[in-house]
Amino acid sequence: MYRDRILLKSLWGKVVGAEEAALHIRDGMTVGMSGFTRSGDAKVVPLALAERASEQPLKISLLTGASLGSDIDKVLAEAHVLSRRIPFQADPVLRKAINSGEVMFVDQHLSETVEMLRSRQLPQIDVAVIEAVAITEDGGIIPTSSIGNSATFAILAEKIIVEINLHQSMDMVGLHDVYIPTRRPHREPIPLMTPSDRIGLPFIPVDPSRIAAIVITDKMDSFATITPPDEETNAIAGHLVEFFRHEVRKGRLSTSLQPLQAGIGSIANAVLHGFIDSPFHDLQMYSEVLQDSTFELFDADKLKFASGSALSLSGECARKFFGDVKRYKDRLVLRPQEVSNHPEVIRRLGLIGINTALEADIYGNVNSTHVNGTHMMNGIGGSGDFARNCYLSVFVTKSVAKGGKLSSIVPMVTHVDHCEHDVDLIVTEQGLADLRGLAPRERAKLVIENCMHPTYRDRARDYYTRALTRGGQTPHVLEEAFSWHLNAQRTGTMLGDTPEAAAAE
Amino acid sequence: MYRDRILLKSLWGKVVGAEEAALHIRDGMTVGMSGFTRSGDAKVVPLALAERASEQPLKISLLTGASLGSDIDKVLAEAHVLSRRIPFQADPVLRKAINSGEVMFVDQHLSETVEMLRSRQLPQIDVAVIEAVAITEDGGIIPTSSIGNSATFAILAEKIIVEINLHQSMDMVGLHDVYIPTRRPHREPIPLMTPSDRIGLPFIPVDPSRIAAIVITDKMDSFATITPPDEETNAIAGHLVEFFRHEVRKGRLSTSLQPLQAGIGSIANAVLHGFIDSPFHDLQMYSEVLQDSTFELFDADKLKFASGSALSLSGECARKFFGDVKRYKDRLVLRPQEVSNHPEVIRRLGLIGINTALEADIYGNVNSTHVNGTHMMNGIGGSGDFARNCYLSVFVTKSVAKGGKLSSIVPMVTHVDHCEHDVDLIVTEQGLADLRGLAPRERAKLVIENCMHPTYRDRARDYYTRALTRGGQTPHVLEEAFSWHLNAQRTGTMLGDTPEAAAAE
Ligand SMILES: CC(C)(COP(=O)(O)OP(=O)(O)OC[C@H]1O[C@@H](n2cnc3c(N)ncnc32)[C@H](O)[C@@H]1OP(=O)(O)O)[C@@H](O)C(=O)NCCC(=O)NCCS
Ligand SMILES: CC(C)(COP(=O)(O)OP(=O)(O)OC[C@H]1O[C@@H](n2cnc3c(N)ncnc32)[C@H](O)[C@@H]1OP(=O)(O)O)[C@@H](O)C(=O)NCCC(=O)NCCS
Repeated sequence: MYRDRILLKSLWGKVVGAEEAALHIRDGMTVGMSGFTRSGDAKVVPLALAERASEQPLKISLLTGASLGSDIDKVLAEAHVLSRRIPFQADPVLRKAINSGEVMFVDQHLSETVEMLRSRQLPQIDVAVIEAVAITEDGGIIPTSSIGNSATFAILAEKIIVEINLHQSMDMVGLHDVYIPTRRPHREPIPLMTPSDRIGLPFIPVDPSRIAAIVITDKMDSFATITPPDEETNAIAGHLVEFFRHEVRKGRLSTSLQPLQAGIGSIANAVLHGFIDSPFHDLQMYSEVLQDSTFELFDADKLKFASGSALSLSGECARKFFGDVKRYKDRLVLRPQEVSNHPEVIRRLGLIGINTALEADIYGNVNSTHVNGTHMMNGIGGSGDFARNCYLSVFVTKSVAKGGKLSSIVPMVTHVDHCEHDVDLIVTEQGLADLRGLAPRERAKLVIENCMHPTYRDRARDYYTRALTRGGQTPHVLEEAFSWHLNAQRTGTMLGDTPEAAAAE
Repeated sequence: MYRDRILLKSLWGKVVGAEEAALHIRDGMTVGMSGFTRSGDAKVVPLALAERASEQPLKISLLTGASLGSDIDKVLAEAHVLSRRIPFQADPVLRKAINSGEVMFVDQHLSETVEMLRSRQLPQIDVAVIEAVAITEDGGIIPTSSIGNSATFAILAEKIIVEINLHQSMDMVGLHDVYIPTRRPHREPIPLMTPSDRIGLPFIPVDPSRIAAIVITDKMDSFATITPPDEETNAIAGHLVEFFRHEVRKGRLSTSLQPLQAGIGSIANAVLHGFIDSPFHDLQMYSEVLQDSTFELFDADKLKFASGSALSLSGECARKFFGDVKRYKDRLVLRPQEVSNHPEVIRRLGLIGINTALEADIYGNVNSTHVNGTHMMNGIGGSGDFARNCYLSVFVTKSVAKGGKLSSIVPMVTHVDHCEHDVDLIVTEQGLADLRGLAPRERAKLVIENCMHPTYRDRARDYYTRALTRGGQTPHVLEEAFSWHLNAQRTGTMLGDTPEAAAAE
């Protein structure tokens, strides 16, 4: 029975089917949905929209926390419902629609979306669709496995549709900490001084009269599709652990380091996993997404506390966590993404940010989003919030991609998400380049010699040597800066027409 | 008499000549000097260093607030004293030494340098050389026309050399507000809620036993070399004022707007100047450098309060201000640059940041530093602190440079300091592109049609049209992305071998 999840009885009459609820969403509207890295997403109303779009014109601007699971971005893209998508996605079908120019994708720093909404610099939310475990006696919405932008979407929306998900455990109640920065120009400091501080409410406070419909669901979150640690990610973790040991020896860090942020994806997860066999302890996380590695670190008694905006777990880890939420609950908190990613908090806590690069260049500029400078992978996500404002900004990547045909270290990146000023360490399985306090010419030597795959090193040395004859703070042979990428576009590999290229076929 | 400027009598015996004081600085040392955009720089000890370098080996790493005046960077570069220079400069001779690879220039976000020093991620300061108006009874150092990084340099240095400048008015006492964020991991919120809040001390607190020498000087600051507003900068200001009027009409801003930050340079100064003839009033500035325009706005009764880290004034404006400091004093405060540029404060106050681009691309990525992607102009300065974290990030530039031979709007910038996510508006004398909430394909149309010089528009439309056939979130013809720059390198103009190019000769 779902009624024990709707404590405000006057809302019982609002319970309807997904199709009926979805009628509140009309052609041309701006819709804010819960959902962040495949968790806590609204699961049935979006599908009803897709259905309806097969019969009548229906295009919406869709805002979420981050990427959605349950194939929702896929289904919506296939049904051509999306005219605009903000601020992050990670679905192959939607990606295609974005890169073809069908869907206008507004890739944003994840801390900024609701800040812009609140100051009305983005179109206002007509309808918010929020997954919840329950509704409180006052109409407060208790989110599920992510908060993301749900709180501000619900607070600002004309109308709210709540999807109560019976599959999400009631043990989650109390896990959330909903704090919304006060309005400028009278904003006060965010009173958060350690990752474990609780500064807000355990629910999203809304006027219940704006709750237009409630839909009951029982679908599970999608599981994360993380590939397990391998030899290379282990090597990356090893280099990083060795670096931190060195920092501890130098007295710059304690054995608890500084609070850790780790980006989405397989590599960042594997790197954190590598901390299990490290000498560090009483670690804390202040991150955006919490992946399997968070729970592995809890179980290994390495991690004291973890703050995030969403849980993104594999099937196995999800079963473990949701089967025994209480075991972890007093060491966990979920916050709105504008708090998890807030520049103020990131700088104050002095985070160590670990994010993944698609490619980096010899001077330490990082491309996290655009393959060949043009085709969107996922989006910048929170990486810019963290890299710019944290204590130490680490970027990890395997030194080569596509079986060695592409080097992830190139003369010049084809798109810059993180400029050299925001990149302190680059780590590949080959080694680590500590770029702090170095000029570009010094950085180039370290990146080439420490991080690049040996197959590409001679070529990079040659480029750099010739670039030096042209001079400059950041020497380049401008007409060749993208020659590796052009080679790959033409021949399928950056190796060009060489014996190595033939071997990599 | 200088003794009334050294209230701690036990320090009287430390007064020596510049040459003797400079002996504390030895080959290989790391030196932190006061000075920010040509003001408040140590003026005689650096020259004594240059002198000594003609007789004996002497190389130092030099850190400052920002650029120096009094030809100090020039003289030090000519004497080959600088092995490393951090974090900003603007001198043609030093620039040459940087671009030739002689001086390692570590270009940094201006809020980060002392943060990195404090956490020992940069080499420690051996000697700090700080210009002061006076020393208090407890040995506190009262800075002059800039604070910059002086406070933390003095607090962290082994030894301190103070240059007491008799030419700097004692009326400046009380103008400064020295607040140093507490140490991580126990850092507290910075208690600053409006630009006029005073949260620290009017002097730099140091243990007087570390004051190793005091030198008496009476040199004036260098005057700013700002070119006055012209037709084009007036047009830029006009577009921006019109934009803000629109925002006020829409109810997004009040007629006091949000606190303003304006970057260094002629264009930003001229743009602020343009606010004199605007309908806005009770404006506030929360900026890094305060230029002539700040005082023009005071005199026009448009500006209520201005917070900065340095004053950088023309001869005329300097005479007006320093002749009558008291007239402005209760509407002014100077802060350490890590507070003026702090992400926490920038986001909380919701600043409007106005900075200058060297070039921008059709998608809104901005290059502020590297001509042709290689040769350093000045440095990123504080523009990254502001652009990433403010309420509205504006970039201004004239649409063409070098008499029309170069377009400041290009297909792809050759270096990215500010990625598209950090750029809300681009304004040239041609017009304004409001990029908020737009995808790259939408941005390109606006930037080409509104901001580009008509001479280059057809060429850009052609590039963009062909780029579209390749697809992508951010379409490019990768092999031609830098063709305009390469054209200019070859022929002196981006117009290539065309009639327009011949006419521009
Ligand atoms: C960069 C990012 C895509 C890497 O993801 P990942 O899962 O860790 O890494 P993978 O090695 O599996 O790479 C993902 C894909 O990029 C491809 N790739 C990796 N390096 C590449 C390169 N240099 N050139 C082209 N493609 C590359 C991989 O081949 C893989 O493609 P596939 O999906 O077709 O197999 C991902 O981390 C991301 O989207 N980051 C941006 C957002 C972010 O950093 N958020 C942080 C805060 S949460
Ligand atoms: C970008 C910057 C150099 C512009 O300075 P400015 O004085 O406002 O503008 P100007 O038009 O006079 O340009 C300065 C020089 O750059 C050149 N320039 C301008 N656009 C150019 C372009 N697209 N390509 C090449 N050179 C260009 C000008 O010709 C001029 O050269 P000159 O000194 O040889 O005459 C300056 O604002 C800067 O250094 N910014 C980075 C730091 C910053 O933004 N700090 C902000 C916080 S304080």
